[in-house]
Amino acid sequence: MGKRFISACLALLALTASAHAREFARPETFTLRNGLQVVVITDRRAPVVTHMVWYRVGAADEPRGYSGIAHFFEHLMFKGTRQIAPGEFSRTVARNGGEDNAFTNWDYTAYYERIARDRLELVMRMEADRMRNLRFSDETFNSERDVIVEERRQRVDNSPGAVLGERMRAMLWPHHPYGTPVIGWLHEIQSLDRERALAFYETWYAPNNAILVVAGDVDAAELRPLAERYYGRLRPTQNLPARTWTRDPPNVGPMRVTHSDQKVRQPSFSRLYRAISYGTDTGRQAHALDVAIEILGGSETSRLYRALVEEQRIAVSAGASSSTSGLGGGSVSVWATPVEGVTLEQVEAAADAVIAAYLRDGPTEPELTRAKNSLSANAVYTRDSQESLANMYGASLAQGESIDDVVNWPRDIEAVTRDEVMTMARDTLDIDASVTGWLLPEEGR
Amino acid sequence: MGKRFISACLALLALTASAHAREFARPETFTLRNGLQVVVITDRRAPVVTHMVWYRVGAADEPRGYSGIAHFFEHLMFKGTRQIAPGEFSRTVARNGGEDNAFTNWDYTAYYERIARDRLELVMRMEADRMRNLRFSDETFNSERDVIVEERRQRVDNSPGAVLGERMRAMLWPHHPYGTPVIGWLHEIQSLDRERALAFYETWYAPNNAILVVAGDVDAAELRPLAERYYGRLRPTQNLPARTWTRDPPNVGPMRVTHSDQKVRQPSFSRLYRAISYGTDTGRQAHALDVAIEILGGSETSRLYRALVEEQRIAVSAGASSSTSGLGGGSVSVWATPVEGVTLEQVEAAADAVIAAYLRDGPTEPELTRAKNSLSANAVYTRDSQESLANMYGASLAQGESIDDVVNWPRDIEAVTRDEVMTMARDTLDIDASVTGWLLPEEGR
Repeated sequence: MGKRFISACLALLALTASAHAREFARPETFTLRNGLQVVVITDRRAPVVTHMVWYRVGAADEPRGYSGIAHFFEHLMFKGTRQIAPGEFSRTVARNGGEDNAFTNWDYTAYYERIARDRLELVMRMEADRMRNLRFSDETFNSERDVIVEERRQRVDNSPGAVLGERMRAMLWPHHPYGTPVIGWLHEIQSLDRERALAFYETWYAPNNAILVVAGDVDAAELRPLAERYYGRLRPTQNLPARTWTRDPPNVGPMRVTHSDQKVRQPSFSRLYRAISYGTDTGRQAHALDVAIEILGGSETSRLYRALVEEQRIAVSAGASSSTSGLGGGSVSVWATPVEGVTLEQVEAAADAVIAAYLRDGPTEPELTRAKNSLSANAVYTRDSQESLANMYGASLAQGESIDDVVNWPRDIEAVTRDEVMTMARDTLDIDASVTGWLLPEEGR
Repeated sequence: MGKRFISACLALLALTASAHAREFARPETFTLRNGLQVVVITDRRAPVVTHMVWYRVGAADEPRGYSGIAHFFEHLMFKGTRQIAPGEFSRTVARNGGEDNAFTNWDYTAYYERIARDRLELVMRMEADRMRNLRFSDETFNSERDVIVEERRQRVDNSPGAVLGERMRAMLWPHHPYGTPVIGWLHEIQSLDRERALAFYETWYAPNNAILVVAGDVDAAELRPLAERYYGRLRPTQNLPARTWTRDPPNVGPMRVTHSDQKVRQPSFSRLYRAISYGTDTGRQAHALDVAIEILGGSETSRLYRALVEEQRIAVSAGASSSTSGLGGGSVSVWATPVEGVTLEQVEAAADAVIAAYLRDGPTEPELTRAKNSLSANAVYTRDSQESLANMYGASLAQGESIDDVVNWPRDIEAVTRDEVMTMARDTLDIDASVTGWLLPEEGR
């Protein structure tokens, strides 16, 4: 499972940042007596269901010094219970024509199965079982740790861009847990132990800290008895800890970091800005920011792309994106990859000129309309995908939003004004709240 | 007390980094049954004593999110016990012709009295009393919190150089607790509460986590019965926590931060490098590093000063210093303040050229000799000051060194070879393990 987590996270981030539909049907929801929230998104187009359990726990909840524990469970949750032998979970799903997956973020950990409607009860039984009854030996734990260390080596440590990105985040969030990578720092993964992992599991993996999202050929009246049968008997965690995270001190000024590695073929410039998020904003701020950044760099018609790639022809790619789904705050990234013969200094200066002009003049009406339409178009795509809808509701609820927030999202995007866009762009694209990263080949130093 | 802590820390850092004597007399030492280590440095020149208690707890031991607790006790320890009314501690010392002080570091917290020999028993009684029996109300706690918030505002938040320095440390130690300021982040000081502070006190303020250092007109035979009487009855902390700190991920490349503020009158360049310390090195590495940095920038005859201030006349000051006393690691700083009309870019480039030449050619024999003599001269000063000697032994023991390490320090400095100096200079002055800070007036942006 672990191998898939980074691409799953990226897909999900992109999705929750920008993709809600112009009108979302309101899902049915109910809560079991043990605290499990259930969301049902009926979709009768095909006799299939997407079954997801979202835990309100992620990398940001790890005890300091034990990074990687949250992601570790992406692996451990497939190691069996008294009912299910190690590895049997995924084999059973596959044997029944389904597929499964899992992913971890700073805010949540989610487990996913897509399967024929008549096998829903099977995956509910197995998923409920492993919510409270996971069993794994020291041996299993240690061998899985080696797998994760190898995963980190491949995905991060062998990727200069990923190494740079990790450090940029650590600088952007110097004290907040978002500065720690989801997969964990290598030396901390290596020293994780079964006992600490079990304590984490027993605290956080509980019905009163989870959201069950079922999308597909089922409605709440059909689902409720099944949910009661399999999840209803599970014991909640008493005194569930509050998700109180350390906050960062105020920004002091622009930060920079350069990473050089012989594996780099293509130098690149990137920048992260601190931003609000749907979890931390008030009113329509995150909506306005999503629109603002879509205009700046969300597509090939955006300001950055047109200026750097098409007009000045100094970059092979350039863009910006907002990451606004976080429970504890968000970020905006801006990037450009220069064409041969152009320096990072030049593309950075060009990007800064585009940003300065944007902050001075604001968006045009056509840009505003196009950006809103583009976000809505992504939303339409989301609405049409059972899995994406389930993802969207699960992630949004796990990240502090309500069903109303999600349902109203398309309307709120539509309502964003030019003034709101300019305010959020100016508040966010503040060099004093930024980290700039340069990625260079070793010989470029 | 709090007001004095920063200057005391700075003095102490300078001291422990570089000042040990060519030969130190070996102090007497013994340990009480409850775990209190006692060090006696006899000095009969005058009928006075310096009485210090060093706790092996500091800002690095604070629970994440509660920065400032360790320093808070610098204030609270003067708030009284059942025996001593609030404020009475210092008044009693003063009334008896003595003086007292306290200071906090990442590694330790220390309490100090200097008083006539015949009042030693008085301060021992009072100091032992507050090791275990501190009492303070919510009201006292909250009012002291306001005092500390104001202290922080004055010392840090109103000082652009201090604000920049805090952030540079946070970048240099992204995950290690040394990245958190000793005084605490403002928003965390503001949310500290009495209950959490008491738990910290009850855990760490204990005879088995303390070192009593008494210097002056007394020897071990005279001191032991007093130590037994006052400290010997104190209850040790069972299961004293290990001082295990989170470690940092590997360096990825040069980091930079710029802080601009209208209060800045004089722009300046500074850089921090990660370094080993006496607490983390093996053999004579920290000694060699101290010698290396003394040559680079320790005085007005150093390479940086001569090149930038005297020869090129581009800087009003320039230098380097090593901070090698930490239990968990050290750092080296390099700085320069340009003369009017010279940019930070120019002084930084000039400093980098000096460093490059130094790493290429290494020190000359006269430089090596002069640096060792200079460190030894500081040590002679230390040896001649009762208070400095007590500081040196207390800090060194609290930071993981042994009495032997301290006694042998002058001999070890003498033994440092040119090769060792060059190895440590090259290992440490690595731009990939550095943070560069620029301090600029607001209009300079």
